Amino acid sequence: VPALPQGYNLRRVGKEDFQDKNLFKTLSILTTVGDIPEPKFHALIEYWNDRKEIYNPMVITNAENVIIATGMLFVEHKLIHGGGKVGHIEDISVNPSEQGKKLGLIMIRNLIQIAQTEGCYKVILDCDEKNVRFYEKCGMKIEGVEMGYRF
Amino acid sequence: VPALPQGYNLRRVGKEDFQDKNLFKTLSILTTVGDIPEPKFHALIEYWNDRKEIYNPMVITNAENVIIATGMLFVEHKLIHGGGKVGHIEDISVNPSEQGKKLGLIMIRNLIQIAQTEGCYKVILDCDEKNVRFYEKCGMKIEGVEMGYRF
Ligand SMILES: CC(=O)N[C@@H]1[C@@H](O)[C@H](O)[C@@H](COP(=O)(O)O)O[C@@H]1O
Ligand SMILES: CC(=O)N[C@@H]1[C@@H](O)[C@H](O)[C@@H](COP(=O)(O)O)O[C@@H]1O
Repeated sequence: VPALPQGYNLRRVGKEDFQDKNLFKTLSILTTVGDIPEPKFHALIEYWNDRKEIYNPMVITNAENVIIATGMLFVEHKLIHGGGKVGHIEDISVNPSEQGKKLGLIMIRNLIQIAQTEGCYKVILDCDEKNVRFYEKCGMKIEGVEMGYRF
Repeated sequence: VPALPQGYNLRRVGKEDFQDKNLFKTLSILTTVGDIPEPKFHALIEYWNDRKEIYNPMVITNAENVIIATGMLFVEHKLIHGGGKVGHIEDISVNPSEQGKKLGLIMIRNLIQIAQTEGCYKVILDCDEKNVRFYEKCGMKIEGVEMGYRF
């Protein structure tokens, strides 16, 4: 795993991340963020914190303490594989202004490491065709097709 | 949604499903089930039952009360989409001896219905290329590529 640039940090999302809106800005590169009032944000952080064995919402901050990358690992307890666990990587987003610093790779490798510590037998994610090369560079392989149904 | 055949039932997995091993037999059509001693099985059922807003492990039983199909819906709370929820469909398995009764379709449509009741903005799953046609018949569309990393 390459090191983070000087002054950059990887940490869990917290309630204080509502203020400067940088978490929302970074996620809005990936998809629709929508409206999240402060009480709703705090409730979600509490929901995640009460279920730390499931939800690992992580961010990378730069030397100015601004969130510039996001990533979630959540852990599913299954019956298959001897009651095994699967790590799901979700909501990976990196600010384009920070490209070339391998922040995406560093985020993915760290989420895989959390999954290993949690005892998962595999880690999976769904992505666009155009991001396959990036995830291959992270050590991942194509496993199947993502199908969806939208309400 | 087509109706279940006479005498067939859709219900949640319970601790009593350890005894006759039909749950394990049905899942072993999908993948490796491995060894799950009774206390470990009971602990997992309790873990799922304590988190009913996340885990919906379902089975279909036939007229002889034998489990012949399985499916899981688990619900992820996200920050994106205004603090939206995503339903993940997992561990779909149907006993080949029961083919032609649309049990797979009935299971999927029921899991999608649970996701709608839970307020999910979408439902997703990962599958082999060879199952794409089946999931399209269930009303789903290809959304992306599944990538994985195995420990
Ligand atoms: C590896 C990764 O980051 N995958 C993300 C997924 O986690 C996210 O939930 C989804 C949002 O798309 P949506 O707004 O269309 O649901 O996009 C991508 O598939
Ligand atoms: C829709 C569906 O049922 N997908 C299943 C997934 O839920 C299951 O966890 C996996 C097990 O495969 P594995 O044993 O190789 O991890 O197979 C399929 O992808």
